[in-house]
Amino acid sequence: MTHSVRESVLSPQAIAEGLTALRERSPLVQCLTNIVVANFTANALLATGASPAMVDNAAEAEPFASVADAVLVNLGTPYPVTVGAMAGALRGAASGGTPWVLDPVAAGALQWRTSIAQALLDQHAPAIIRGNASEIIAIAGQGKGGRGVESVDTVDGAVDVAAELARDRGTVVAVSGEVDHITDGDRLVRVGNGHPWLTQVTGAGCALGALMAAFTAVIPDPLVAAATATATFTVAAERAAEQSAGPGSFAVSLIDELAALSSEDLAAAVRLS
Amino acid sequence: MTHSVRESVLSPQAIAEGLTALRERSPLVQCLTNIVVANFTANALLATGASPAMVDNAAEAEPFASVADAVLVNLGTPYPVTVGAMAGALRGAASGGTPWVLDPVAAGALQWRTSIAQALLDQHAPAIIRGNASEIIAIAGQGKGGRGVESVDTVDGAVDVAAELARDRGTVVAVSGEVDHITDGDRLVRVGNGHPWLTQVTGAGCALGALMAAFTAVIPDPLVAAATATATFTVAAERAAEQSAGPGSFAVSLIDELAALSSEDLAAAVRLS
Amino acid sequence: MTHSVRESVLSPQAIAEGLTALRERSPLVQCLTNIVVANFTANALLATGASPAMVDNAAEAEPFASVADAVLVNLGTPYPVTVGAMAGALRGAASGGTPWVLDPVAAGALQWRTSIAQALLDQHAPAIIRGNASEIIAIAGQGKGGRGVESVDTVDGAVDVAAELARDRGTVVAVSGEVDHITDGDRLVRVGNGHPWLTQVTGAGCALGALMAAFTAVIPDPLVAAATATATFTVAAERAAEQSAGPGSFAVSLIDELAALSSEDLAAAVRLS
Repeated sequence: MTHSVRESVLSPQAIAEGLTALRERSPLVQCLTNIVVANFTANALLATGASPAMVDNAAEAEPFASVADAVLVNLGTPYPVTVGAMAGALRGAASGGTPWVLDPVAAGALQWRTSIAQALLDQHAPAIIRGNASEIIAIAGQGKGGRGVESVDTVDGAVDVAAELARDRGTVVAVSGEVDHITDGDRLVRVGNGHPWLTQVTGAGCALGALMAAFTAVIPDPLVAAATATATFTVAAERAAEQSAGPGSFAVSLIDELAALSSEDLAAAVRLS
Repeated sequence: MTHSVRESVLSPQAIAEGLTALRERSPLVQCLTNIVVANFTANALLATGASPAMVDNAAEAEPFASVADAVLVNLGTPYPVTVGAMAGALRGAASGGTPWVLDPVAAGALQWRTSIAQALLDQHAPAIIRGNASEIIAIAGQGKGGRGVESVDTVDGAVDVAAELARDRGTVVAVSGEVDHITDGDRLVRVGNGHPWLTQVTGAGCALGALMAAFTAVIPDPLVAAATATATFTVAAERAAEQSAGPGSFAVSLIDELAALSSEDLAAAVRLS
Repeated sequence: MTHSVRESVLSPQAIAEGLTALRERSPLVQCLTNIVVANFTANALLATGASPAMVDNAAEAEPFASVADAVLVNLGTPYPVTVGAMAGALRGAASGGTPWVLDPVAAGALQWRTSIAQALLDQHAPAIIRGNASEIIAIAGQGKGGRGVESVDTVDGAVDVAAELARDRGTVVAVSGEVDHITDGDRLVRVGNGHPWLTQVTGAGCALGALMAAFTAVIPDPLVAAATATATFTVAAERAAEQSAGPGSFAVSLIDELAALSSEDLAAAVRLS
């Protein structure tokens, strides 16, 4: 099967405008995420210019999602009580017209969360699904599964699957990898920035998913929102790596660089194709 | 309504003695807090000189609170199981005479936790309630609520409400802001230290609430305990900011400076009014 | 009672080979741990060369443990739902022949988790039990208990108890302290590296327990696995301390140094006795 998608003509200027808009509006991002990355995710949102709110209980998730600017659902450490909150958040998002992002961590490798992800997708279509290649393939129902959060399928092999998933679900699919691929089934954007240390910091991908949610609140086109989040995060990562001694100091510096990154520097550094 | 409170005459020397006492006695602080900030809170307590114990399950919270030196209840990510543990901790605190601190994160913005906070206050009076202006107004039952943890009311406007709340509940109320205001309804202390990056680090306020709990264990007057915690935390923040490149390195340096701060340097730097 | 254990003849070269093996095989380590340290634990595993997977729900814990390379069970913040997942993980570990490590945080000080630890030990013998002196004494059923995670018993006094516990349970027992003692009831290894700041970083001991689990996946002898984890972690800590200003920067640098530490440098720096 050949790609039926068009190569995107997204400009660095459009990416820069998205970051400027995020900082002007400081969107409130409700995160239902996991116990491993909640702190790093909140700090990444704050540094970039958004307002995180970790509202993940069943009593508050629904009403809050109806007034929040965006919602992130991340399946890193699901429990029955938080899964109930996720379903509630989607009801609230649906009633409030709030865009939401699904990050199906370790889908395919683990059966329960794979079925949760499918049920959430069936309940209410997200603006964006973000994952590595094996997670995206699993969500599309074609994977053999991996053993955890490490991707075992190549990004290139996942792009056709991602495009078909995007068309089937009426969503944008973002496949993280050495080059990130983002598609709505019709268009394809590649972001070539990043650094290998991103794979050595737990929650880097999870924080990227949260940034995607934040950008959906200020950029109407989810494809552009996902690309802007990816560009912002990976360009900041490149700048952070230049001054870090290892993955520990890199994670700290990444927060600094998300805060320091100007829209102009972002436009100059992003590698779109 | 005019302020009926007296401006406090708290001295830098009293603040310094409080920090010295904390390090001599290393109080055991039981924290029932949220998944976002548990790590940062524990490290802030350890760095300052206290001993954290994150005991937040229903089976252990009550007996532990009766022997701990202080208890923190933070409503950042409440769940039914942890709310049950909070009620148990207050029973233990009451039976053991253990002081406790309430941090009603996002009260007003979210209904369930606002009612939890009220129920906890009705169960057993805390030594200190710590929040931003909108949270304090919500707890006092006068707020219209915000949308999350970001304060939407001014500190100045909240001081009258805080003083009345303090008198009603027989507690100390600490209102965080550019200048922190601490009152028991009769006296008022202002602490003018701090740095804007404190608002860009998730859990900075939560860690301050934990430090307030720690100081209640070594300072009999909760007003002085709250002021000493605030002074220690915000002076350390000023010193951390001087050597940080952004909010990521600032959060790391804040832990270093909490550990390095001497009682003498604290007394010299604190701005009380 | 005199020691009935033999002083070990473990060589620095054997330790170095263990670290090399870990990096070649990158074992998948399932962690059922606590909300305070989950992030630091995952980053420590990644930096050292293992692959963390925080799978701690009841639906997925059992099947995942049967295919993971090792399992960590840490009792830092147990809840009914996660305790159920722990029992499931042990069933999976038993069926898959997966080695597991128990870290009974605050056992003795807290009754519920002490009984959980005993029940898990009765269900399926671990490869390693790791704790401080008071935790190990409590697990052996001889302690009077402490008040929290701070050790209140000396390491030396715990070694006899540890050796007896190791023989009774057919496991290795690692007692953390200024000098770490590791015994299988027959042999005893001491690792003399470390730094006082390890006691000021929350989750340092928890991360060490996770590294022990990782090394059990690549080193058949659990005594050597525990010693290799201890040596790797404490040598990295010494190197991190040299370039840190306090416990905050030390925790960051420790992750950097776990990633940077070569097998050769480890062999040169480890102090075994």
